[in-house]
Amino acid sequence: MSTAAQVIRCKAAVAWESGKPLSIEEVEVAPPQKNEVRIKILFTSLCHTDVYFWDAKGQNPLFPRILGHEAGGIVESVGEGVTDLEPGDHVLPIFTGECKECAHCLSEESNMCNLLRINTDRGEMIHDGKSRFSINGKPIYHFLGTSTFSEYTVVHVGQVAKINPDAPLDKVCVLSCGMSTGFGATVNVAKPKKGQSVAIFGLGAVGLAAAEGARVSGASRIIGVDLNPSRFEQAKKFGVTEFVNPKDHNKPVQEVIAEMTGGGVDRSVECTGSIQAMISAFECVHDGWGVAVLVGVPNKDDAFKTHPVNLLNERTLKGTFFGNYKPRTDIPAVVEKYMNKELELDKFITHSVPFSEINKAFELMLAGEGLRCVIRMDA
Amino acid sequence: MSTAAQVIRCKAAVAWESGKPLSIEEVEVAPPQKNEVRIKILFTSLCHTDVYFWDAKGQNPLFPRILGHEAGGIVESVGEGVTDLEPGDHVLPIFTGECKECAHCLSEESNMCNLLRINTDRGEMIHDGKSRFSINGKPIYHFLGTSTFSEYTVVHVGQVAKINPDAPLDKVCVLSCGMSTGFGATVNVAKPKKGQSVAIFGLGAVGLAAAEGARVSGASRIIGVDLNPSRFEQAKKFGVTEFVNPKDHNKPVQEVIAEMTGGGVDRSVECTGSIQAMISAFECVHDGWGVAVLVGVPNKDDAFKTHPVNLLNERTLKGTFFGNYKPRTDIPAVVEKYMNKELELDKFITHSVPFSEINKAFELMLAGEGLRCVIRMDA
Repeated sequence: MSTAAQVIRCKAAVAWESGKPLSIEEVEVAPPQKNEVRIKILFTSLCHTDVYFWDAKGQNPLFPRILGHEAGGIVESVGEGVTDLEPGDHVLPIFTGECKECAHCLSEESNMCNLLRINTDRGEMIHDGKSRFSINGKPIYHFLGTSTFSEYTVVHVGQVAKINPDAPLDKVCVLSCGMSTGFGATVNVAKPKKGQSVAIFGLGAVGLAAAEGARVSGASRIIGVDLNPSRFEQAKKFGVTEFVNPKDHNKPVQEVIAEMTGGGVDRSVECTGSIQAMISAFECVHDGWGVAVLVGVPNKDDAFKTHPVNLLNERTLKGTFFGNYKPRTDIPAVVEKYMNKELELDKFITHSVPFSEINKAFELMLAGEGLRCVIRMDA
Repeated sequence: MSTAAQVIRCKAAVAWESGKPLSIEEVEVAPPQKNEVRIKILFTSLCHTDVYFWDAKGQNPLFPRILGHEAGGIVESVGEGVTDLEPGDHVLPIFTGECKECAHCLSEESNMCNLLRINTDRGEMIHDGKSRFSINGKPIYHFLGTSTFSEYTVVHVGQVAKINPDAPLDKVCVLSCGMSTGFGATVNVAKPKKGQSVAIFGLGAVGLAAAEGARVSGASRIIGVDLNPSRFEQAKKFGVTEFVNPKDHNKPVQEVIAEMTGGGVDRSVECTGSIQAMISAFECVHDGWGVAVLVGVPNKDDAFKTHPVNLLNERTLKGTFFGNYKPRTDIPAVVEKYMNKELELDKFITHSVPFSEINKAFELMLAGEGLRCVIRMDA
């Protein structure tokens, strides 16, 4: 029996207030409206951004809210005007969108869609400014337009990537955000050539995905930089060949790296969000051709500061958002890279829990354990 | 009668002390040694860098010295080991070199040769640490390895570009430094696409050469930024379509430009050396795809400072040196661009004086009059 055009009652993990464990509730999910898609989520994974907005420190709190944005699922029904997708399609919802009509979407270089660019403050759908989630008629806020901590969710069609139906959703769900962000930062933006050296600042999940990008690009040396030495052992599995802990040196880490490499690395990718790491990542690249790419999200009051001669000596400094991938156009091909065994994803998935134990995923992340915990919705 | 292997006596303009008019003297020019070339200079033009090191404020003064680095001439004789050049070749001496062997020369991207990179402090030849210039046996210092304010000069072969002998040296001499620096910054580094908008900060000779690069690239809008409104009329000849004087606005010029262009220009090129202009040039480019290129040389204590979100929103910041041209490999092709009438140079040459009146060229530059003054050596 088709559920299209019906309200669906299903389970969702609701964040009622900041920092408190999520609570699994029965919610009503309204049918998709114009340019919207309702998706049955099969797997979702936890990303730092979920924890950050759950914790909601220094933010306008927006609760009750259904978090979640890294996920894989199957289209249940589509709203008016949706022609690219149909029920049964395998999809990844993405936290930022692609309208295919604005200047950014028409540019070959940008993925910062004017209409559907990430908006962390918005809690409703763009079409009518209303939520599709409710409990006993009381609306529950959306998160990033995805809200994947629910058995069913409604997403703008511009935020849905249609992927190969043979791809295992319990693996490729991590391409919704973190792994694509790090991998794309290296392969789309830093673009190391075969045999070049790459420094990766921060060896969390995003940094290791950047290292995976360096490995796939044929980098000769991948230098991992982290304040936590326990991360090096794990990083070796991701192709990191050397490790530098800034705490082990009494000079700036950029000088240490310059000495290790005869003047600097060819490329660097910063995945911590620390302003000091950003400056070091820039200053550790070789003059003449070095490219530094910033990925990590800084604090509001941070200032990036360097002597302009570091630029005039022909270094390049770039930032990236979601690895410069256009969600609908490019992500299906990243899934294919996994299917072709070019890109490895399984090693990022260190934990798995049933939906009923979603709070365990939060605990693991808060304890800094593992990389990605996949939450099984049907379990 | 060949002068090869002989000391040549000729006229040179000697700077005896900082800030004092040059004095035309008879000097002895020793024969070129290993990997050196002796060049008969026919035309030389004055660049700000000559005036800066003549003025020598805040520098280690190195006098007496023969300044000059933008020039065109003919090879008189070559030293041991020189196989690329022979007497009679038409050449441009260049203030920075290309050894063709170091990591920078072997890189496709860099022109910052390890051996022959610009060195403003060196006053002698690399081969033996001695000067080839003397007056009554007393050595006179070289400048930038070029010292073109002399009828004859000795230059390392790695700093000599062999050009089309049909090219008029009284015009293409300006490609030795300033015009290539600005033009290359746009065409090699900022690389605007046809129809894109470009902002040029600083409408002096280098900035106008950057504008020329934007014109040749087919830019739709070329926005000139300068504190001196008298420069706009001249700038129109160089394709500048709009003018912004930061003094006319009570908000940062990057905001003014963003308003004029619906979010920012596609490319910007900074040619002033002012740290505030560098920051504005970066912040005025469009998010998603904007590229800012720094050309101007900053003060020692300057710090480039911006919020990292400006980078994360997919802006690119790059610096360039000599327009990213490799002196020997690339400059001959820039001369060809002039010969093919693709690149216009004549409009940069606003004045011309005989060698005997070289101090007039300094006066014009100090008064901010004109763009390039060509000095005719045989006059």
